[in-house]
Amino acid sequence: MSLGRLGEKRLILRLRRILGEPSARTLLGIGDDAAVIEAGGRPLVVTTDAFTEWVHFRFDYISPDQVGEKILAATVSDCAAMGAAPRWVTIALAAPAETPIERIEALYGGLKRGASKYGCDIVGGDTISSLSDLTISLTAIGEPFGPRLLTRAGAEVGDDLYVTGRLGGAMAGLLLLENAPEKTLRPELRAAALRYLAPEARIGAARVLATRFPVTALIDVSDGLSVDVHHLARESGVGFRIEKKRIPAEPSALRVADELGVSRELILHHSGEEFELLFTMPPGEEDALLDALASEAGIEAARIGTVVEEGEGVLLVDEKGEGEPLLEEGYEHFRILYPEEDGEEAPEEPTGEEETGEETAH
Amino acid sequence: MSLGRLGEKRLILRLRRILGEPSARTLLGIGDDAAVIEAGGRPLVVTTDAFTEWVHFRFDYISPDQVGEKILAATVSDCAAMGAAPRWVTIALAAPAETPIERIEALYGGLKRGASKYGCDIVGGDTISSLSDLTISLTAIGEPFGPRLLTRAGAEVGDDLYVTGRLGGAMAGLLLLENAPEKTLRPELRAAALRYLAPEARIGAARVLATRFPVTALIDVSDGLSVDVHHLARESGVGFRIEKKRIPAEPSALRVADELGVSRELILHHSGEEFELLFTMPPGEEDALLDALASEAGIEAARIGTVVEEGEGVLLVDEKGEGEPLLEEGYEHFRILYPEEDGEEAPEEPTGEEETGEETAH
Repeated sequence: MSLGRLGEKRLILRLRRILGEPSARTLLGIGDDAAVIEAGGRPLVVTTDAFTEWVHFRFDYISPDQVGEKILAATVSDCAAMGAAPRWVTIALAAPAETPIERIEALYGGLKRGASKYGCDIVGGDTISSLSDLTISLTAIGEPFGPRLLTRAGAEVGDDLYVTGRLGGAMAGLLLLENAPEKTLRPELRAAALRYLAPEARIGAARVLATRFPVTALIDVSDGLSVDVHHLARESGVGFRIEKKRIPAEPSALRVADELGVSRELILHHSGEEFELLFTMPPGEEDALLDALASEAGIEAARIGTVVEEGEGVLLVDEKGEGEPLLEEGYEHFRILYPEEDGEEAPEEPTGEEETGEETAH
Repeated sequence: MSLGRLGEKRLILRLRRILGEPSARTLLGIGDDAAVIEAGGRPLVVTTDAFTEWVHFRFDYISPDQVGEKILAATVSDCAAMGAAPRWVTIALAAPAETPIERIEALYGGLKRGASKYGCDIVGGDTISSLSDLTISLTAIGEPFGPRLLTRAGAEVGDDLYVTGRLGGAMAGLLLLENAPEKTLRPELRAAALRYLAPEARIGAARVLATRFPVTALIDVSDGLSVDVHHLARESGVGFRIEKKRIPAEPSALRVADELGVSRELILHHSGEEFELLFTMPPGEEDALLDALASEAGIEAARIGTVVEEGEGVLLVDEKGEGEPLLEEGYEHFRILYPEEDGEEAPEEPTGEEETGEETAH
């Protein structure tokens, strides 16, 4: 079976089985935003992200220096999502020999700008030739801001759910740029394009959350609100009720949705690469939290729902209090849609713990 | 100018200028086998390597599980080359959707086998789809074996130069496998093929060197003896006299050279991916060193030369004491030979510290 038929989720489950459980020196292995290792008696977070041209970015609508700064932000955002400060980054570059040097220099200029912005040193890497793909992989190592790290597990029934910033811009921006270059965009739409081209990692907000408030679970919105809230639900063993009207929207994203005739909900619920922080906390400190995030990290945040029993699932609740399931839908690597008439059985959905090796016979 | 015209060495010099100097939290930045960071008051080494199909390996003569174990060894060898124990590894995989899942599972099986062998946890990574290239990037984080880390700088005039193991097998093995599958090889040649297919990282030897002996400079033979001794020379500001006859040869490699009509010296001096340790130490403990490496790490070693003044260069000395320069020749990524008649000026050789930005006008 090909990776395209299997899909990324099932691939990851299979690879996790092969890689097995880590030793006691590893406090948290594969499965959260970053791993946690214990080096010299102190925890460190480690995260690796990979990006490739045509799949993650296209130079016809994002410049090489924007790619560099954006992928640096995407990688260090995984440190923020653990309540850690990114400190060190390595870069692995594979590029075809015919790549113009100016493109690579601009890319590294963007990486450097991102590293400076987020307080990281770029400490090493590798540059190799590839046949045809430009692929970059970044590893970030970070140190906890506070006495403990924040994972996807830990949300408790009764906690509130919050998100920083405003959602939707990244997907709306990409939809726009697929149709028109940034410079030709009307000013009221350009904000969405910038959310796609130049997203921010919420390092300052992570510091506030990790050092000042009793946050119980934390993730960054990299796959989209719907997918990432399901990650929190699964890892914490809880459900969520999200109040539809409270989900904060990037205004330009709604305009783009209306102009392009795309559903506003699609954009709000499924826009990935937002890098906003999604987290849970017991009730009682909402005002202090919103004040601290605004004054110390310059970012607004919104309470968008509550943690409920796992059996209730992840629900979107309207103004009348009626709920509908929020589907876990986002981009999945490798997944190819096969025509139904090819006669082969489609792979089953991943089933987490229950997955066995039997589908190798497909 | 394209990367192919510029070449890897000049590319790295340019990128280092862009990336600038690290902060005080980074004890050693780009330029050695690994970076050294200071986390929680203790040094850690960090190294990233990238590998791509067709450039680094071809599945028609190395199996996916062999690739996995080999690239794991190559990456952790950079920890050994700093006198550090590899502890944690992350994996970034980019693969086309049509890749068979069995190939990726075998690759990860090899990675896991290597990690177990060298005492590492695989703690995370990323799996993405690419258009056409299979690219893997590994990052290893390691902890020093002893009270100090060993770098390429530190060799002193009068020190002896040593190398572990026997050289030449990796290049000879590749030459063989380009002509015939491993299973068809005669037994007396197969040893060379195995040196290419299944090299060993010298972690045990690194522990002996870092904890028991006054080693002054250390590197692993990944680019070939000639290139790597030049790295030691440049970073330590010294020269070397290497006694030709003392360079330990893998016997099967010499047989391959003779059978294929390839120069024995070419293979001995320029075979990369050997992952043997090349190091310097003051005279006086040779017997104790060789005994300890044999009994504690199961590896032989040989004294092959001495450290001399920088002005003498890197010389190969024959039995009569006559020296000739050992040229720094090895594989360079991106480098493409252009026909001279294309009228463009060829790029100059890299000149290290003296390099300025002026060649951007080429």
